[in-house]
Amino acid sequence: MADVAAKERKILVAVDESEESTYALSWCIENIITGNSTDTLILLYSIPPRAVYSSLDGSGYLFSSDILASMERYSNEVAQCIMEKAKRACKDLVGVKVETIVEHGDARDVICQAAEKLHVDMLVMGSHGYGVIKRAFLGSVSNHCAQNVRCPVLIVKKPKN
Amino acid sequence: MADVAAKERKILVAVDESEESTYALSWCIENIITGNSTDTLILLYSIPPRAVYSSLDGSGYLFSSDILASMERYSNEVAQCIMEKAKRACKDLVGVKVETIVEHGDARDVICQAAEKLHVDMLVMGSHGYGVIKRAFLGSVSNHCAQNVRCPVLIVKKPKN
Repeated sequence: MADVAAKERKILVAVDESEESTYALSWCIENIITGNSTDTLILLYSIPPRAVYSSLDGSGYLFSSDILASMERYSNEVAQCIMEKAKRACKDLVGVKVETIVEHGDARDVICQAAEKLHVDMLVMGSHGYGVIKRAFLGSVSNHCAQNVRCPVLIVKKPKN
Repeated sequence: MADVAAKERKILVAVDESEESTYALSWCIENIITGNSTDTLILLYSIPPRAVYSSLDGSGYLFSSDILASMERYSNEVAQCIMEKAKRACKDLVGVKVETIVEHGDARDVICQAAEKLHVDMLVMGSHGYGVIKRAFLGSVSNHCAQNVRCPVLIVKKPKN
């Protein structure tokens, strides 16, 4: 359907375990990327910082290094699982270069920093990456990124039905 | 460059007199629409509600019907001028159906209502449609739309340089 050569774009998609994120990636593939084989699609997942520490923290919890190592292993497995799922969603894209990045840190910081560092043409994300409670305190991740990232930001909401 | 037929999309672009809006439209044409001749592009402009009324209002201003008619004529001319400029930006799009809509009302309401009513696939807008002062009181138009419109919203910022 192309009459003029489409531009080569570098598109960053923030992925996580939420349904919103899965939907945003699928929507982006179907509506933005399909039909343009010159794109580079970068899938980004940030492993959230852990809430407990090896020394006694304010809340009084103390975890052994074994437990911490096991928690870290679990986080990495979750990250791997999310990335595998995201890559499977991209498997029918012909010619598109798909890259994956896993970082540690708060999603808001990780996404904003990656968008700047990688000089992407566009950031795509689901409308909410946090749970309801955390969102009430921190505001939505997408809101933060839309306000702080310099490149165009596409926010995709999962339809209710 | 297309290997798979790209999807037919109905894209709503909110336009106004700001440089952000002009940039957002150009960016959208270059990065989203070019290469896909099956799209429908809808350009939307909302004529802001006038701040004065024919009867004596709270601020004590009274305007004759002549002045009000002249103000309305001016608003319509501005709208026409903005639409002509937006259409000129689309003139090289081959095959894309370009439609224009001019409505009266607050940009936030007009854009949200149009996106729902027209069942568009995506809303594109500049990051700021209001001036600095108004934005401080009302929040940015793009922020409001990103939170209230159900379809995916692409917010394009004009680079500083």
